[in-house]
Amino acid sequence: MERKMSKFTGSYLKLTEVFERVINLKNIAAVLNWDNAVILPSGAMKDRSYQLAAIDGIYNEILQSNELSDILQKTEENTQDLSPIQKRNLQLMRKMHDKAKILDKNLQRKFIMAANECEHMWRQARQDNDFSTYAFFLRQVFDLKMEITQAEADSKKLPLYDAMIDNFEEGFTTEKIDIVFDKLKQFLPDFIDSVINRQNSTKINHFESKKGGYPQNAQYELGRKLMKQLGFNEDIGRLDISAHPFCGGTASDVRITTKYDENDFSKALMGILHETGHALYEQNLPRDYIYQPVGQALGMVIHESQSLLVEMQLCRSREFLRYLSPILMETFGNNNLFAEDNLYQNYNFVKKDFIRIDADELTYPLHVIIRYEIERELVARNIKITELPEIWNDLYKKYLGINVPNDKVGCMQDIHWTDGSFGYFPCYSLGAIAASQFYSTMFNELSQQGIDIKREIEQGKFSQITTWLARNVHEYGNMYNADGILQKVTGKGLDVDSYINYLLDKYGK
Amino acid sequence: MERKMSKFTGSYLKLTEVFERVINLKNIAAVLNWDNAVILPSGAMKDRSYQLAAIDGIYNEILQSNELSDILQKTEENTQDLSPIQKRNLQLMRKMHDKAKILDKNLQRKFIMAANECEHMWRQARQDNDFSTYAFFLRQVFDLKMEITQAEADSKKLPLYDAMIDNFEEGFTTEKIDIVFDKLKQFLPDFIDSVINRQNSTKINHFESKKGGYPQNAQYELGRKLMKQLGFNEDIGRLDISAHPFCGGTASDVRITTKYDENDFSKALMGILHETGHALYEQNLPRDYIYQPVGQALGMVIHESQSLLVEMQLCRSREFLRYLSPILMETFGNNNLFAEDNLYQNYNFVKKDFIRIDADELTYPLHVIIRYEIERELVARNIKITELPEIWNDLYKKYLGINVPNDKVGCMQDIHWTDGSFGYFPCYSLGAIAASQFYSTMFNELSQQGIDIKREIEQGKFSQITTWLARNVHEYGNMYNADGILQKVTGKGLDVDSYINYLLDKYGK
Repeated sequence: MERKMSKFTGSYLKLTEVFERVINLKNIAAVLNWDNAVILPSGAMKDRSYQLAAIDGIYNEILQSNELSDILQKTEENTQDLSPIQKRNLQLMRKMHDKAKILDKNLQRKFIMAANECEHMWRQARQDNDFSTYAFFLRQVFDLKMEITQAEADSKKLPLYDAMIDNFEEGFTTEKIDIVFDKLKQFLPDFIDSVINRQNSTKINHFESKKGGYPQNAQYELGRKLMKQLGFNEDIGRLDISAHPFCGGTASDVRITTKYDENDFSKALMGILHETGHALYEQNLPRDYIYQPVGQALGMVIHESQSLLVEMQLCRSREFLRYLSPILMETFGNNNLFAEDNLYQNYNFVKKDFIRIDADELTYPLHVIIRYEIERELVARNIKITELPEIWNDLYKKYLGINVPNDKVGCMQDIHWTDGSFGYFPCYSLGAIAASQFYSTMFNELSQQGIDIKREIEQGKFSQITTWLARNVHEYGNMYNADGILQKVTGKGLDVDSYINYLLDKYGK
Repeated sequence: MERKMSKFTGSYLKLTEVFERVINLKNIAAVLNWDNAVILPSGAMKDRSYQLAAIDGIYNEILQSNELSDILQKTEENTQDLSPIQKRNLQLMRKMHDKAKILDKNLQRKFIMAANECEHMWRQARQDNDFSTYAFFLRQVFDLKMEITQAEADSKKLPLYDAMIDNFEEGFTTEKIDIVFDKLKQFLPDFIDSVINRQNSTKINHFESKKGGYPQNAQYELGRKLMKQLGFNEDIGRLDISAHPFCGGTASDVRITTKYDENDFSKALMGILHETGHALYEQNLPRDYIYQPVGQALGMVIHESQSLLVEMQLCRSREFLRYLSPILMETFGNNNLFAEDNLYQNYNFVKKDFIRIDADELTYPLHVIIRYEIERELVARNIKITELPEIWNDLYKKYLGINVPNDKVGCMQDIHWTDGSFGYFPCYSLGAIAASQFYSTMFNELSQQGIDIKREIEQGKFSQITTWLARNVHEYGNMYNADGILQKVTGKGLDVDSYINYLLDKYGK
């Protein structure tokens, strides 16, 4: 993608100015949201939601204004002088305008406030295993989200749940997802059982057996070191602590957070490496377009593909763990826990368990499928919020064969629904599929250039990989949609079979 | 002041909605500015200034809109149903509208960007003692500030420098300030010499003699403990680290910063207590009006009066230091440094020195007067930015009798000019005068109620004082201007004689 915009003229120039402001507002909200999670004193929560509602209100007023409508129309009437990037940019502007146009201002404000309140209440309610309090606030968020999305669904001519998914990654529908998830539901359960069976015959020393052996500061410094080695640029990013790890901020100010457990280094470390995948995507977006829609990252499927590629394909590989082994010994002392084989077994240990974010690569899609099936039924109004625990527990029994002991580790474990992010969950597994496709293409392309990736990884050299990702995915920003970039890079759309082959190859032997 | 707004109606209600948004934008800018100083990665500075410029642009567009003009006019035509608070609120809204109305949008945007750049460049230039680089950026800021303020001066019918001062505290002019500063210039130099002479006959153990004896975390915990004891509410506030200590954030999210020196606890501790004075003002503003102009704090004179009262009258008093003495021994180990007398002598030690922020109570006004005299001449275009070092050093020789060795500890020491805050400096000393007046009134009033403040302080009980400040100053927000609140509380306007009496009383024996 050419890195410089060709000369702007007339109404198109005006549009870019409007969207520069719009994206600044989006960036400001991102900083405020990071601050919520990391810094904000508890008593300031309510005033913060007024701030976020004010930003959101102004954002939508600009996007839905008649003035913008007029300039858009005028620009669309004569696009022959626009470059392909400018044309795509215009298309994305139109999409944002149309979406804002149908938004009910008061409804949206109510939703923002309700979502903020629900997230806040959830933190306490989850701690107290108090589903009924959570359900009360969740229902408000859900009902408002349904009402808001109905207008979008009508306008996009999509079924309601599809419209929700479309907000997280354009072009994905239940029809497409069903094909993928049905295959996974056929394949995974038996495969998981066979892997666990074989796993039972191997002795594993679990990381947790070294209680208190991982001082927080040593974990932090190790995480930072590896992040930077992977290409994270600390001049335009940070690593901090929050209760719920995430990657936030903006393209020139990427903020990773994690939480540390001094009894077990493994989750924080892999968490940081996962978020580094997200961060590299943001840091490598095309700088010349970061204030235009075309310069933004794609949706959650592609974003997750980038974090999962770094986590699953790269950092949980035998080669990476071979590289990591002596570093862990140096950091936390010599211990056969950190032997390469033991690292590999720990970091690829398969277990049917309750918590999605702690799940391994094989059971993870089942956690996602459970949420997907629940969301569909909720949106279809076939089940009620109050019925969540029962349905949740039934599905965990059905797909993972386990009995959920309480809602804290059951239907209250995730943050997503609290802020109305229905339709988000499927993206995790779609992203995992995309990750395996990108990795396999990259592997082949680099091999053909005589580059032995596995050799590079075990030597702690990651620049071939991250440069490939930057050139082939990140630097395109939003020039193509998710399906488009997959097609362009891998030659086909989302391909569950290649993912299943990857899993068979990794876990089947 | 009654705590609840009476029922809003019609156009006044509409105004309150507009200003709720305006104040949310102001609050958002405050969070972003705090983040700049404490969190922001270096490479994100430029994008942050775009964010601040976007917020500032929207803020001014709302304030200068014709729509607002119309509602204001309509409301002003019929104010008989408005309460006194609402009338004052309306008056403040009008003032904000008039100020924004004459603002040149492009000029203001240029100014915001230039100020951000200058502040950024100054940090490095100061470190390098590189005046010419600093001067280059400062001149841009200064010229833009002059141009912007000229329009305000014309509109307010004030001389240019008076218009600058008016932005920091309404109603203060060079005419008023000259009377005050002339008296201080007459009184202070000889008085300082006599105090230093007497001081020379006393042996003082300076805090710095215990090198490395003050671990940062112990200082932090001590600062937090005393802050809270003074009434700082941690549910709606924080204490963090920044290179340049300040009190920022918003009324429900007050953020104090400081920096620690492990060789000397005394500056960080007193810095925290000073900022706590600012913080209490913000935390005690009338909650029902925090989204209206009438609920905001007054300008810098009154704000500084609150921080200086807490620092100078309260925390540098013999009684407070008597209370502090055993706490310091407990925190940093037994040491005769922490004996009450030695604490008092250290914390009230007078010295003619270079750095304003480290100056004692007696020499501080001379630091301020030097800056005031320079600003006047700069604004009158009698001197040029490039001449600053020469003039600065001459005035330090004249008023403090010392030879400034370099610009780093000379004319480049302060942050204020970098962001165009010309007219701010006088507020420090005017605030010190107001502080002595408030304190003396409070002392008399509480004494009449049979409350022995000195006894309370030495027992570490501060609630009588902070409650008095809250009831008599903070909770009025912006109901009266600075002169109005001084008149209301102390029975007279700014009174330099009572300040001189306070200094004579404290240092003259």
